[in-house]
Amino acid sequence: MELIWLIPVAGFAAVLYALWLAWDVLRRDPGTPEMQNVASMIFEGAMAFLRRQYSTIALLALVTAVVIFFIVGGVSEGVKEIISDKGEVRYGDKVVSRWEEGLLTSIAFLVGAAASALAGYIGMYISVRSNSRTASAATRSLSEAITVSLRGGAVSGFLVVALSLLGVSGIFLVYSQLLGNPDSITPFLIVGFGFGASFVALFAQLGGGIYTKAADVGADLVGKVEAGIPEDDPRNAAVVADLVGDNVGDCAGRGADLFESMSAENIGAMILGVVIYKVTGNLEWVVFPLVLRSFGILATMAGLTSVPFFARRQTGGDPMTPLNYGYYIVSILSVAGLFIATRVMLGDAWYWFFFCGLIGIGTGIAFVYITQYYTSGAWRPVREIANASRTGPATNIITGTAVGLETTAATAITIGLALVASFVLGSEAADTLGVKGFSSGVFGTAVATMGMLMSAAYILSMDTFGPITDNAGGITEMSGAPESARHITDSLDAVGNTTKALTKGYAVASAGLAAFLLFSAYLDKVKERLDIPLTEELPIDLSTPDVFVGGLLGVMLVFLFSSLAIRAVGTTAARIIEEVRRQFREDPGIMAGTSRPDYGRAVDITARASLRAMVAPGLLAVGMPVAVGLIFRFARDQSVTVAGVTYPDSSGWLAVAGLLMIGTIGGVILATFFNNVGGAWDNAKKYIEAGMLQVPSGNPGTMITLGKGTDAHKAAVVGDTVGDPYKDTAGPSLHVLVKLLSTITLVLAPLFIS
Amino acid sequence: MELIWLIPVAGFAAVLYALWLAWDVLRRDPGTPEMQNVASMIFEGAMAFLRRQYSTIALLALVTAVVIFFIVGGVSEGVKEIISDKGEVRYGDKVVSRWEEGLLTSIAFLVGAAASALAGYIGMYISVRSNSRTASAATRSLSEAITVSLRGGAVSGFLVVALSLLGVSGIFLVYSQLLGNPDSITPFLIVGFGFGASFVALFAQLGGGIYTKAADVGADLVGKVEAGIPEDDPRNAAVVADLVGDNVGDCAGRGADLFESMSAENIGAMILGVVIYKVTGNLEWVVFPLVLRSFGILATMAGLTSVPFFARRQTGGDPMTPLNYGYYIVSILSVAGLFIATRVMLGDAWYWFFFCGLIGIGTGIAFVYITQYYTSGAWRPVREIANASRTGPATNIITGTAVGLETTAATAITIGLALVASFVLGSEAADTLGVKGFSSGVFGTAVATMGMLMSAAYILSMDTFGPITDNAGGITEMSGAPESARHITDSLDAVGNTTKALTKGYAVASAGLAAFLLFSAYLDKVKERLDIPLTEELPIDLSTPDVFVGGLLGVMLVFLFSSLAIRAVGTTAARIIEEVRRQFREDPGIMAGTSRPDYGRAVDITARASLRAMVAPGLLAVGMPVAVGLIFRFARDQSVTVAGVTYPDSSGWLAVAGLLMIGTIGGVILATFFNNVGGAWDNAKKYIEAGMLQVPSGNPGTMITLGKGTDAHKAAVVGDTVGDPYKDTAGPSLHVLVKLLSTITLVLAPLFIS
Repeated sequence: MELIWLIPVAGFAAVLYALWLAWDVLRRDPGTPEMQNVASMIFEGAMAFLRRQYSTIALLALVTAVVIFFIVGGVSEGVKEIISDKGEVRYGDKVVSRWEEGLLTSIAFLVGAAASALAGYIGMYISVRSNSRTASAATRSLSEAITVSLRGGAVSGFLVVALSLLGVSGIFLVYSQLLGNPDSITPFLIVGFGFGASFVALFAQLGGGIYTKAADVGADLVGKVEAGIPEDDPRNAAVVADLVGDNVGDCAGRGADLFESMSAENIGAMILGVVIYKVTGNLEWVVFPLVLRSFGILATMAGLTSVPFFARRQTGGDPMTPLNYGYYIVSILSVAGLFIATRVMLGDAWYWFFFCGLIGIGTGIAFVYITQYYTSGAWRPVREIANASRTGPATNIITGTAVGLETTAATAITIGLALVASFVLGSEAADTLGVKGFSSGVFGTAVATMGMLMSAAYILSMDTFGPITDNAGGITEMSGAPESARHITDSLDAVGNTTKALTKGYAVASAGLAAFLLFSAYLDKVKERLDIPLTEELPIDLSTPDVFVGGLLGVMLVFLFSSLAIRAVGTTAARIIEEVRRQFREDPGIMAGTSRPDYGRAVDITARASLRAMVAPGLLAVGMPVAVGLIFRFARDQSVTVAGVTYPDSSGWLAVAGLLMIGTIGGVILATFFNNVGGAWDNAKKYIEAGMLQVPSGNPGTMITLGKGTDAHKAAVVGDTVGDPYKDTAGPSLHVLVKLLSTITLVLAPLFIS
Repeated sequence: MELIWLIPVAGFAAVLYALWLAWDVLRRDPGTPEMQNVASMIFEGAMAFLRRQYSTIALLALVTAVVIFFIVGGVSEGVKEIISDKGEVRYGDKVVSRWEEGLLTSIAFLVGAAASALAGYIGMYISVRSNSRTASAATRSLSEAITVSLRGGAVSGFLVVALSLLGVSGIFLVYSQLLGNPDSITPFLIVGFGFGASFVALFAQLGGGIYTKAADVGADLVGKVEAGIPEDDPRNAAVVADLVGDNVGDCAGRGADLFESMSAENIGAMILGVVIYKVTGNLEWVVFPLVLRSFGILATMAGLTSVPFFARRQTGGDPMTPLNYGYYIVSILSVAGLFIATRVMLGDAWYWFFFCGLIGIGTGIAFVYITQYYTSGAWRPVREIANASRTGPATNIITGTAVGLETTAATAITIGLALVASFVLGSEAADTLGVKGFSSGVFGTAVATMGMLMSAAYILSMDTFGPITDNAGGITEMSGAPESARHITDSLDAVGNTTKALTKGYAVASAGLAAFLLFSAYLDKVKERLDIPLTEELPIDLSTPDVFVGGLLGVMLVFLFSSLAIRAVGTTAARIIEEVRRQFREDPGIMAGTSRPDYGRAVDITARASLRAMVAPGLLAVGMPVAVGLIFRFARDQSVTVAGVTYPDSSGWLAVAGLLMIGTIGGVILATFFNNVGGAWDNAKKYIEAGMLQVPSGNPGTMITLGKGTDAHKAAVVGDTVGDPYKDTAGPSLHVLVKLLSTITLVLAPLFIS
C-alpha cells in the first residue's frame, strides 16, 4: 500500500489548484460595464436555472433514496463476508444485516448525488464568471483570452475530478475503517455512490441539454428566420436564454456526465479487484484504480499549466495547437504514472496491466483524431456535406446521415479492439496471480478504462472552455465591443466547437470501454446474491428468450429515450418562440431598438419548460430496467447452471443483463451517430460561412464561392439546426443513460433475483 | 403424413392461379396509343435493368457457389447420421462425404438463387404490363382499376410464394428421396437454398432500392426544384427512369425479400423440427412448415378472390377498405388451416402449437395497425410532423426523427411479446413430446413465424399493387388522359403508399420473429459440427469479450451498411441530375416541349450507376460476418463447456453468433426507424397537399389552410425527400441483410469452427 498516500494528496492538490485558478480568473478585469451587465444577466439566469433544477433533482433523489432503502433492505438478505479458500472465492458469515445494507446504500446514493451536484454548481459559478473576463481579455490579446477561458473551464474540470476521487475514496474509508466493514465487501456497499452520481447526471444532462438546444433553436427560428435579425442580437428576447443554455448544457451537464463516469467506473473496477485481492491477499488490487486516478490528476495539472506557455510562444495560428500540445504532455506523464502505479502495486504480473493501461491511453488519443476527422472541415466528411448543400436541405440531410452512420464504424472497431486486446493481455496475468483468465481479463479492461480516464480533467477543462468562449462571443456582440475582439472570440468559439465534439467522442469511448467492467460488476453482484463463488463464470446465454428479448428492449430503450429527448427540445423551443413573438407583438419598441426585451421572462419560461420536459425521459431511463426485470422475474422461469449447480427462476436478472449489455451497445453506437452527425453538420455550415465551398463557374478556370446568404448556406443552416438536438441533447444524454443502466442494475440487482 | 399431398396441390394451384390472373390482366384493354407508348418505355427500361442486374448477380452468385463448394468441402468433415437414443439425439456414422456436402450445398445455393430470380422476373414482367391497363381502367371506373392493379400485383405475390414452396419442398424431396440422404440430415443439406435466395434478394433489393430512389430524388431535384416543372412531366428526361424505379424497387426488390424470408425461415424451421422428429419418430415435425404454408396459399387465394366483390359493393370511399376485408378473410381462413394442420400433424401436444400459430397471425395483424398508426395522416404522429413543417424544414426533420425513433417501441414490444409467448407455449409441449423445453420452445417461435407468413402472398400482392398504381398515375399524366382518370389513380396511389408501408412493417416483424428460429438453426449446425447432441443447449455467453464485441460489430455493421446504401442513392442521383441538365442544355426544344428528351439514356445511366453502387454494401454484408468469424477464430481462444465437455478455441463461432443475434436486434430496430419515419414524412407531405393543415388566422374562429406551394409544404417536401432513401433503400435492404446474416452463417458455420 505504498502509494495510497497519493490519493488524498492528489485530491486536495486538485482542489487547491482549482481554487488558485478560480482566484486567478476572478481577479482579472471583468470588462466594460456593458459586458458586466450582459454577464450578470447570464449569471442570474444560469444560477436560477441551476437552483430550480437542483431542487427538482433533490426531490427526485430523496424519494429514490427512500425507495432504495426499502428495496435493498426489503429484498436483500444482507451481505456475507467473502473468503478465499484454495483459489476459490466463496462466502462466509453474514456481516451486514439487510436493513443496514439498505441504509448504507441509500446514504452512499445521497452522498454521490450531493457531490455531483456540488461539483456542477461550483464549476458553473466560475464558468459564468469567466465569460465577461474572456470577452475583456479578447479586447487585448488572443493569448490572454485563451488563458482566461481555459483556466475558467479548468476550475470545473478539476473540481469534478477531485470531488469524484475524494468522494469515492472517502466513502470507502468511512465504510471500511470507521464502520468496520471488511475491505472486500465495502466496494459492494458503496455502489449507491455511483448510482447517485448517474442519477444526478442523467437529469442534469437531460435538463441542461434540452434547455440549451431549445433556447438555441428557438432563438434562431424566431430571430434569424422570422424577424431577420442576426444571431446574438440584443433585440431577441431569447438571446440571453441561449447564452445561459451554453453553460447549463455543456458545462454543468457534461461535468455531471464525467463525474459519474469516473465514479461509477472506479467503483466497478474496485468490485472487480475484490477477487484478485482475496486470492492474492493484497488490497492494492482494490485501491489501485484510485491511485491511478491520482497520477492522472497530477499529470493533468502539469499539462494544463503548460498551455499558456505554448500559447505565448505561438503568435497567430490555430488556437487548437497549444491545447493539443498540452494534451500530449498529459498523455506522456500519464504513461509515466501508469508505469509507477502498476510496477509498485500490481506485483509480478504488473507489466500486463501496464500494457492494458497503455491501450486505454491510446484509445483516448485515437478518439481525439477520429472525432476531428469526422467533424472538422479539413477532411472529406464535412466537405462532402458542404458540397451536398448545393442541391438543397434534403441532400444536406441525406449526406449528413450517411456520414453520421459511417462514423460508427471507426468507433466500434476501436472500442472492440481495445476491449479484446486489454482482455487478452489481462488474462495473461492469470496464472501468475492464481485466478481464472476471466477475472484478470476483465480487470485488464478496467485498467484500460482507468488509463483512458486519467486525462479526464484535461478533457473536461477543454469542454468547459467551449461555453465560456461561446458566451464571450455573445457578450462581445451584445455589448458593442470592437470588431477585433469579436474576431478573437470567433476563433476561440470555433476551437470550442471542436473541443466540445472531442469531449463527446471521449465520453462515448469511455462508456463503451467501461461497459465490460460495469456489467462484470453487475454479474459479481448477482453471484454474491446467489452464493456463487466470485471465481466462477456466470453465463448470460444470448440464445435464451429472456436475454434476447431483454436486449431487444434495451436497444428499443435507447431509441425511445432519444425520441423523448429530441421531442422535448421541439416542445420547449415552441414555448420560447411563442414568448418572443408575444414580446415583439406587445412592444414594438423592441424591434426598433428603443426598449429592452424582457430577457428574464424568456429565461424563466425556458427553464420551466425544459425541467418539465426532462421528467419523462428520465423516468423512462430509471423505470424501464426495473420494469423489465420485474416482469421477467415473475413471468418466466429460465434456469442457469453454474459449476454443476442449477439456479432456477433466473429470468429476472438474465433479462436485465441482456437489456444492460445490448442496450449499452445500441446506446454507444446511436450516441456516436448523434454526436458526430451533429458536429459535422455544424462544421459544414461553418465551412461554407468561411467561404471555402467553391464551384466551377461558367468560365473555365475560375471558381464561384458559395458563402453566407447563398441557398447552399441556407441548406447547411437546416442541417446545423437538425444536428443541434442530436449532438447536444440526445447524444450526451445517451452516454449518461448507458452508465445509469449499469449503476441502477448494480444497486437494484436483488430486486430481480427470486 | 396425411396432409403432405397438400404441398404440391397448393404449390401448383398457386401457379395456375397466377397464370389465370396474368391471362385476365393481359386480355384487358392496354389503353390509348399514348398510354401504350409510355408503358412500353417503362417496360423496356425495367426489363433492361433487370437483365443487366441479373447478369451481375448471376456472375457474383456463380463465384460464390464455387467458393461455397471449396469452403464447405474443404473445412467440413462431412455429415453424420442423426440418431435418437433414449431421449438424447446424437450422431452416428458419416453418411455424406465432405466434398459431396460441398457440392450439394453449392447446388442448393444456385437453385435458390435461380428460383428467386425467376420469381422476380416473371412478377416484374406482369407488373409492368399491368400499369397501362390500370391507367386505361381508371378512365372507366375505380372498381375496375383496383381489380386490374391488384390482380397484376397478385401474379408476382403468388409466383413468389409458390416458387418458394415448390423450391424448398422440391429440393428436399430430391435430396432425401432421389439421392437417398436420411430425412433428418436433409434440412442441413438444403441450407444453401436459403443462402442463395438471400444472396439474390440482397442485391435485388439494394440495386432496385438505389435505382428507385436515385431516380425519384434526381428527377424531383432537377425537375421540380431546378426547372420548376411538375412531377411526372414528360419534359423531364428522368421521368421514365423514375417510373421504372417503382417497379424494380418495390416489385422486384420486395418480391426477392419475401421470397428469401419464406425460404430461409422454412428451412430454419425444418432444422428445428429435426430434434422432435428424431425423438418422436414422426417426420411430420420436419415437413409441418411446408404444409402450413400450403394452407396459407389456399387461404390467400380465397381472400384475394373476394376483393373485387367487396370493391363492387362499395361505391366511392376509401379503396383501402376492400383490401382490409380481404385480409380479414385470409386471416380467418389461416386460423382454420392452422387448426387442421396442427391437429392432424403435431400429435397430442398440438394445441400448444396452435396457440403459437395464432400469436403469429395476431402479430401480422398488429403490425398492420401499428404501421397505419405511425404512417397514416389520420393519427397523431403524421399530424405532428405536418404541424412542425410550419416552422421550416429543420423542425420537420427533428419532429420526424422523434416520431421515427418512437415507432421502434411498439415494434420491439410486439416482437418481444410474441417471441416470449410463443416460446413459453411451445415449451409447455416439451413433456408430452419427451424433448427439452428449449427445443419445443424454439419450435413454438418457428410456428408463430410460419403462422405470420401464411398471409405473405396477400401482403405481397398489396405491395406490388403500389408500383402498378404509381406507374398508372405517371402514364395518365404523361399520356394526357382526362383529369377524372388522374383522380382515380391518385386515390389508388395513396392506398399504394399505405400498402407499401404495411409490407415493410410486415417484413420487419417477420425478420424479428424469425431471428430466434434462424439463429437456433445456426446453433444446431454448430452442434452438429462439434458433435454436441442436438438435445443439449449451447450457451452463447454474452459476458465473454468475443460475443460482446461480435455484437458491437454486428450493430455497427447495420449502421455502416445503411450509410453505404443511403450514400449510394446520393451519388447515383447526382449522375441523373447531370444527365438531365445536359439534355436541357444541349436541346432547348425539350423545355419548349417541341422535342422529346432521351428517356432511354437516362434509364441506362441510372441502371449502370445503381448497379455499380450496390456492390460495396453487398460485399460488406457478405464479407463482414466471414471476416469477423475468421479473425476471432485465429486471434482468440475462448472455450465453451456443454454438458461437462469443454470445447476449446470456440471464439470464431461465438463472435459470429454475437454478430448475428445482436446485429439482428440492431437491424430490426434501425429498419423500423427508417421505414416508419420515411412513411410518416411522405404522408405528412400528402396531408398538407390535401389541405388538411390548418392554423388559426388573425380573426378568431377562422382558419387558414396551409396547402400546396406554402412554405410549410416546401418544408414537408424536404422531409419527404430525406425519407425516400430511408424507407425505400436503407430500411428494406436492412431486412434482407438481417436474414442474409442468418443464412450465410448457417452455410459457412464450419469455417468458424477450429
